[in-house]
Amino acid sequence: MPTKLKDIDYGKSRVRVAKINRHPDRHEFSDLTVDLRLQGSFEECYLAGDNSLIVPTDTMKNTVYTIAADVDLDPVEPFALKLAEHFLTTHSHVKAATIHVAEHRWSRVDPHAFEQGQSLRLAEVEMTRDGATVHAGLDHLVLLKTTKSAFEGYLKDRYTTLPETSDRIFATSVRAVWRYTSATVDFNASMERCRRTLIDVFAAHNSRAVQETLYAMGDRVLQSQSEIDEIRLTLPNKHYLPVNLKPLGLENRNEIFLPTDEPHGVIEACLTR
Amino acid sequence: MPTKLKDIDYGKSRVRVAKINRHPDRHEFSDLTVDLRLQGSFEECYLAGDNSLIVPTDTMKNTVYTIAADVDLDPVEPFALKLAEHFLTTHSHVKAATIHVAEHRWSRVDPHAFEQGQSLRLAEVEMTRDGATVHAGLDHLVLLKTTKSAFEGYLKDRYTTLPETSDRIFATSVRAVWRYTSATVDFNASMERCRRTLIDVFAAHNSRAVQETLYAMGDRVLQSQSEIDEIRLTLPNKHYLPVNLKPLGLENRNEIFLPTDEPHGVIEACLTR
Amino acid sequence: MPTKLKDIDYGKSRVRVAKINRHPDRHEFSDLTVDLRLQGSFEECYLAGDNSLIVPTDTMKNTVYTIAADVDLDPVEPFALKLAEHFLTTHSHVKAATIHVAEHRWSRVDPHAFEQGQSLRLAEVEMTRDGATVHAGLDHLVLLKTTKSAFEGYLKDRYTTLPETSDRIFATSVRAVWRYTSATVDFNASMERCRRTLIDVFAAHNSRAVQETLYAMGDRVLQSQSEIDEIRLTLPNKHYLPVNLKPLGLENRNEIFLPTDEPHGVIEACLTR
Amino acid sequence: MPTKLKDIDYGKSRVRVAKINRHPDRHEFSDLTVDLRLQGSFEECYLAGDNSLIVPTDTMKNTVYTIAADVDLDPVEPFALKLAEHFLTTHSHVKAATIHVAEHRWSRVDPHAFEQGQSLRLAEVEMTRDGATVHAGLDHLVLLKTTKSAFEGYLKDRYTTLPETSDRIFATSVRAVWRYTSATVDFNASMERCRRTLIDVFAAHNSRAVQETLYAMGDRVLQSQSEIDEIRLTLPNKHYLPVNLKPLGLENRNEIFLPTDEPHGVIEACLTR
Repeated sequence: MPTKLKDIDYGKSRVRVAKINRHPDRHEFSDLTVDLRLQGSFEECYLAGDNSLIVPTDTMKNTVYTIAADVDLDPVEPFALKLAEHFLTTHSHVKAATIHVAEHRWSRVDPHAFEQGQSLRLAEVEMTRDGATVHAGLDHLVLLKTTKSAFEGYLKDRYTTLPETSDRIFATSVRAVWRYTSATVDFNASMERCRRTLIDVFAAHNSRAVQETLYAMGDRVLQSQSEIDEIRLTLPNKHYLPVNLKPLGLENRNEIFLPTDEPHGVIEACLTR
Repeated sequence: MPTKLKDIDYGKSRVRVAKINRHPDRHEFSDLTVDLRLQGSFEECYLAGDNSLIVPTDTMKNTVYTIAADVDLDPVEPFALKLAEHFLTTHSHVKAATIHVAEHRWSRVDPHAFEQGQSLRLAEVEMTRDGATVHAGLDHLVLLKTTKSAFEGYLKDRYTTLPETSDRIFATSVRAVWRYTSATVDFNASMERCRRTLIDVFAAHNSRAVQETLYAMGDRVLQSQSEIDEIRLTLPNKHYLPVNLKPLGLENRNEIFLPTDEPHGVIEACLTR
Repeated sequence: MPTKLKDIDYGKSRVRVAKINRHPDRHEFSDLTVDLRLQGSFEECYLAGDNSLIVPTDTMKNTVYTIAADVDLDPVEPFALKLAEHFLTTHSHVKAATIHVAEHRWSRVDPHAFEQGQSLRLAEVEMTRDGATVHAGLDHLVLLKTTKSAFEGYLKDRYTTLPETSDRIFATSVRAVWRYTSATVDFNASMERCRRTLIDVFAAHNSRAVQETLYAMGDRVLQSQSEIDEIRLTLPNKHYLPVNLKPLGLENRNEIFLPTDEPHGVIEACLTR
Repeated sequence: MPTKLKDIDYGKSRVRVAKINRHPDRHEFSDLTVDLRLQGSFEECYLAGDNSLIVPTDTMKNTVYTIAADVDLDPVEPFALKLAEHFLTTHSHVKAATIHVAEHRWSRVDPHAFEQGQSLRLAEVEMTRDGATVHAGLDHLVLLKTTKSAFEGYLKDRYTTLPETSDRIFATSVRAVWRYTSATVDFNASMERCRRTLIDVFAAHNSRAVQETLYAMGDRVLQSQSEIDEIRLTLPNKHYLPVNLKPLGLENRNEIFLPTDEPHGVIEACLTR
């Protein structure tokens, strides 16, 4: 019985490109990592080593450079749309192109200098001959609050040793990816509102569980931004555990914590209208 | 319009546990990283902060320790099955449990000492009340061959600058995950055969494309191991690019290469019977 | 001929500790990674397995927790001084203690919430029975400027292929460590001034070489802050290389760059009065 | 008062280069990461932006490629010597060159295929006009033993909570760097003997402290290899802590452990004749 190809995927990852946009009074600077994937009639390459329909991943990389030279990179979404479109219009056997962009964020120090931040801005375009879907998002947005977070009333079984707490540290590295209802949004404005909303709700919410705060964050985005109809949030629970100081002759008045990355809880959900 | 929960997921990641199994003449040693996810009736926690059905992720961690003390960890698959089963039998509102295990491989130095290798052994159990699916695999198996790899006859467009080559370096970090047809396989023997097959086919194959070699590797596994009915292979193309020595007054007779991780090609496929 | 111990060193690395300082109107939050090293009469442990003078590294960790509970962690320098002092006063056979602290920086979002930044604040105390030396610094301060950076007129030999440029991107991850002339400085104010100076000089300097900018940055710190008498700067040259677009039929008007971490230049110097 | 340059350093890091050596019956493969540093009359670059004596770090990179094309890379020490010599003979104002090489180890699968291992082989050459010093070593050699390791009889103070143990897991990532008495050693044979000795002594030694085992390892190398006159060993104590199973209703018969990298002990010493 011959072995079948159930699904296939190929492309180029971690294509780095940066661009300076020079204005008389200041420079704009974009710094991107691009991942590209193509879907189409590539089976013969797997089955028979026939490369005649294979767009080399090196060509994908060159295409990133060329289109980056041609169009504005701010915001990134139209650039990703242009890239996806290129592959579909140039190659009739390509059925779908997926372009994922992570933008490294630099905050301005002066008209020509920048300091790198920690979080990433994400954009993703999936384009077929029927149209395009645009996602945007944030990653590595590391947030922490020192109060307004409890975890009580949970299920106990014989392996439960965790004490309940009405006041704990809540720390997380937010990954949020939302879907736009169209490809002609004011992407920068929408991104800024989302980012602001996610941070504000995180800070203000009286959290009884990471799950509840996650829902509150996503709900607020969907309620306030009509251009978004779905949002997926991943909130790892980066634990700051109270240190037991009793063996050291001290009481821990909920002040001293051990930060730990291993193990960590993971809370995830997709919210939709 | 109220915001809906489309899908939800929670659990614990990176739970580390190790176990010594002491025999008179030698020790066996297992070293695992476990990820756990539960699915079930957890919506009220997201919507109303009601934790009464939430199994804390800390309890999941404790459960890993307890069951690791109770059962043999070699092979890992029965341990993962036992873990999944525990959550389903203990909690009637849990509909599915997914247990992912990465085993850090240690090769024996003497009866009680070991040297750590680079590759990981993977096992994954997805269990519902209808039964269990068992996957196994390998990750970070880094392979390289210095010949028997070409890349020619590919599609050229105006952004293609890559020269064709009949003899290049082929380097990859294999990730392979296969599905067993049952949960009562001789897991260690099957793993060893798979590992051997993947390495042997990689080394022997006359590669005209990474895709073709990927198919050959997966095909051989499916043809020779009836206990496996599906295999997914991910073969990033870790490029070793010929260095252009002409500006330095030398010719590169296909001898000097620049290893680079960024960017890299990604070739992936799922093969099935 | 017996083997001699030329120098020995032991301690604990990556001790993580965090502390909340609760004020009525706001919380302060400190998040540290501490490394500790002791010097003293530890030879018999190496030579004969005699542990009687060995302070376990686990005890060092507990000491970090205890002293963190006892004293303010903002600024970190007095905390590090207290830690070092503890080991010297408690154990007469300890000759020197070195405490290295990396503070993870969190910027305030609201009175009780914070967003993590990328750079680290450093403090190091080396204490012997003759006194203490206090260093402070910054790490992972990633800066970039899009102009005011040239590299011309350098030495050419037969292996030189780099074209001269009067206008390049200059990107670096600053590590700066300076020495205080006393242990009773206003550490927070001094840190803020240093950080401001390093960023401002980096942005404003007309750079003819990374070396020249490094000197200008350190020189300004030493000229303007009398409490500092020595500064060591490490400025890796994180290259943003102009992409050659000619083979793609385009001209690169100094706009499109390839960011690369591998390889990278390293420029380092210690400046003193 | 003008600011003085106390010490300066510059060079290129993470220069990657690989080479195939084609024999009729098999290929040899070398895969290196090279770091280079030059010392000399470079002050005017720092003080006045004068680049006329600066060898660009890009040229250093090209020199690595060129000399790699010219000489055998196995063993790496003569290659590093040749590189250092190049800078001293070509540039009269260069006073010293330091070449550090990390060789990625590949174990043979067949005559033309390899699997990557985890540990690195190190070589370092420091050359001045007075001669060269050659160091070699190993890094990321991760070893673990499940018995023959105790930690008892240590100093207790009021912050000590660690229980004594006569039988613990001892895991470490060995970094060993030794100095050769000459530059004309059989480097491959010496490396193999060292590696074998370090592993064998680690496995066989009845350890009462990491320090004692470190000394035993280095002592054996110095006693058995006359071409080596100094060895520096760094043995981080990668803790595998016994899990407290009592709250889970079980006893831990020294079988179940929590591997943790944070925090970890660090034990280091330099041994000499």
